[in-house]
Amino acid sequence: MRSENIIVQKYGGSSVANIERIKRVARRVVLYKTKGHDLVVVVSALGDTTDELLELAYGISKMPPERELDMLMSTGEQVSAALLAMAIHKLGYEAISFTGAQAGIITDGVHTKARIIDMGTDRIHKELESGKIVIIAGFQGINVDQEITTLGRGGSDITAVALAKVLNAGMCEIYTDVEGVYTSDPRVVKDARKLDQISYEEMHELASAGAQVMQARSIEAASKYNVPLHIRSSFSYKEGTYITKEAKSMENVLISGVTVNKNEAKITICDVPDKPGVAAKIFKAIAKENINVDMIIQNVSRTAKGKAKKALSTDLSFTVPGGDLLKTMKVTRAIAKEARAGGVIQNNNIAKVSVVGVGMRSHSGVAARMFDVLAKARVNIEMISTSEIKISCVVLRKHADKAVIALHKEFELGKKK
Amino acid sequence: MRSENIIVQKYGGSSVANIERIKRVARRVVLYKTKGHDLVVVVSALGDTTDELLELAYGISKMPPERELDMLMSTGEQVSAALLAMAIHKLGYEAISFTGAQAGIITDGVHTKARIIDMGTDRIHKELESGKIVIIAGFQGINVDQEITTLGRGGSDITAVALAKVLNAGMCEIYTDVEGVYTSDPRVVKDARKLDQISYEEMHELASAGAQVMQARSIEAASKYNVPLHIRSSFSYKEGTYITKEAKSMENVLISGVTVNKNEAKITICDVPDKPGVAAKIFKAIAKENINVDMIIQNVSRTAKGKAKKALSTDLSFTVPGGDLLKTMKVTRAIAKEARAGGVIQNNNIAKVSVVGVGMRSHSGVAARMFDVLAKARVNIEMISTSEIKISCVVLRKHADKAVIALHKEFELGKKK
Repeated sequence: MRSENIIVQKYGGSSVANIERIKRVARRVVLYKTKGHDLVVVVSALGDTTDELLELAYGISKMPPERELDMLMSTGEQVSAALLAMAIHKLGYEAISFTGAQAGIITDGVHTKARIIDMGTDRIHKELESGKIVIIAGFQGINVDQEITTLGRGGSDITAVALAKVLNAGMCEIYTDVEGVYTSDPRVVKDARKLDQISYEEMHELASAGAQVMQARSIEAASKYNVPLHIRSSFSYKEGTYITKEAKSMENVLISGVTVNKNEAKITICDVPDKPGVAAKIFKAIAKENINVDMIIQNVSRTAKGKAKKALSTDLSFTVPGGDLLKTMKVTRAIAKEARAGGVIQNNNIAKVSVVGVGMRSHSGVAARMFDVLAKARVNIEMISTSEIKISCVVLRKHADKAVIALHKEFELGKKK
Repeated sequence: MRSENIIVQKYGGSSVANIERIKRVARRVVLYKTKGHDLVVVVSALGDTTDELLELAYGISKMPPERELDMLMSTGEQVSAALLAMAIHKLGYEAISFTGAQAGIITDGVHTKARIIDMGTDRIHKELESGKIVIIAGFQGINVDQEITTLGRGGSDITAVALAKVLNAGMCEIYTDVEGVYTSDPRVVKDARKLDQISYEEMHELASAGAQVMQARSIEAASKYNVPLHIRSSFSYKEGTYITKEAKSMENVLISGVTVNKNEAKITICDVPDKPGVAAKIFKAIAKENINVDMIIQNVSRTAKGKAKKALSTDLSFTVPGGDLLKTMKVTRAIAKEARAGGVIQNNNIAKVSVVGVGMRSHSGVAARMFDVLAKARVNIEMISTSEIKISCVVLRKHADKAVIALHKEFELGKKK
């Protein structure tokens, strides 16, 4: 078997939302099979299944044990894998579905946020060689103690990328309900344009800045192992967006996209005593809970109210995923108290607006243009962070769309270059 | 750990039909835990989950591959196991859920109808010893190749009985939505009475004759390994019906119950050439499909219509579970043709009415009384079969309730003895 002949396809929840859509996916999979490819198909849970299961769990407990959440949530993908296998059989082709455990996906065992540490390929190769289409339940694996673990948000993408890597697949296709990667969210920006190609690095920044199409960690993994990605729609046969190493043609592009992430929350610890070790303590405790902190800023030291002039203190702000806010507040409050800080404030009404582009490397002045545009649009900037190819600003959520539209226009992203 | 201290509890689908009921089950489990017992709890899928999953499968294919059906159906019990573990945690007790695979339930690998061939207990003992309540997804196991297999109808009962046996549990409690085993179906017979105890043998006959409360094969297994059973309601704390070896006090009882099974279908092969081997061929082919034939009758040989006088032929009738009718018809038609039989007729409008009682062993005349009662009620008998402690008659389905009521009255089952 030539491994370039292997295509890994991943279908997200909206692509397998109901029986009709599962049948459509089956037809597409079979089409590729008849073209001579060996197919390994990763599926997410049916449409709303994940939400329905979470509703059951949170109907029972506000803090369900994460081990049991994994037991619960992993069933969603198992259901769609079995149904897709049935739909392919119905078309007269052989297919076999596997759970993460059966496929040999071994994880580090961190419940609800596991990382893949090993992948078996014997079983998959055996089934491919016998002519079968292999369907794998995404988002899950087991640890060495046979405990079921899920891979966190976008976990099915990770499953697909990891499989494409170990099988040395010719292509890893990520099927979704949009036609590819856009310069911005078409629901917000009317002239947002589909990109034909984009580099791993830019896609990674776009994803971590809020582009929903694929999770940042999956792109990071694809980049690391040079897995060619093709993000496309399961509702059409049009080409989507290819994600590859930086291409020559991309170099002329200053900015590739403007994104917004409305799913972050800001936490501010007031009057943190300005001495070494306090911040470290806080972020160590948060990391221990497996919470990803995104932006961190610290105001210049000032005299704390009501304290002696010599006792300097500072305000420390950071952002975390909205879903982790409760857990983060709990940890932060405990440590703030211990460190004799002033108080902990949460802000759930923020959004992060980012511009991303490899062109920033060689062109200065992007940040200045961005701040200028936001000022003209009367959008106040609460926090700023930058990377080599990205600038992000936290603004009030109600200003987010206005900011995105203004930036998309400023950098002329609607025009084909 | 004293093993008599272990209680295995099995909760059926109606007992865990929704969040409120799962919470109620959790409270009951915890109550037993606080009384000092070690709890191993087997759960079925939530209420209608099984039907919902089947609807998805049959929405995709009329003949879904059984391997994939097992992948699909096994998720139902995994969901309830995880949710019950969460509900117990919420009450402040430690619980851990296992799939059949994780619990070490090894089966023979026959999809949708597997039999347990081995059970691991190390993991369960370890968790019990650490003080945890162990929750196990019923109805499922894996074969030696890690293929998920389900145990067929009533499979969660089998899981519970097998666990009670290997753990040498003091009691195996089967929770259901009725208060125990009744002399007949209370929905049909108004003065049907709950039995305080019943022998394995009688319960086995009642179950195979149509009593819904527990599957015959689970009772057979309990009897074989002398696992004490207590069938009771999850909606009250009243004692239910104990199922044990034949007790002294039971000997005076002539008949314990009257049952009806409306879920069988009758198949008749007309004009089967009356020579050795034909019947064997038919039932061998049906057995190969894992279909359980219940009653078989063969009419006396007669001259086949339109054939030479010397060519004798016979009509052969048998019953199978209604759900297997389609599959059975297919097999039967093929063999009937091959054997040059006349034709195959199916009848889906039958019911099997049975009287069961260990007292029959020492008292003759029960059959005569039964036929007499049915004749007086103007119920025609289509087929008859008997065992040492049971007499079953196939009647038209529309006459079934009338027959049951008349028999329940004749044998005075409404009166406490």
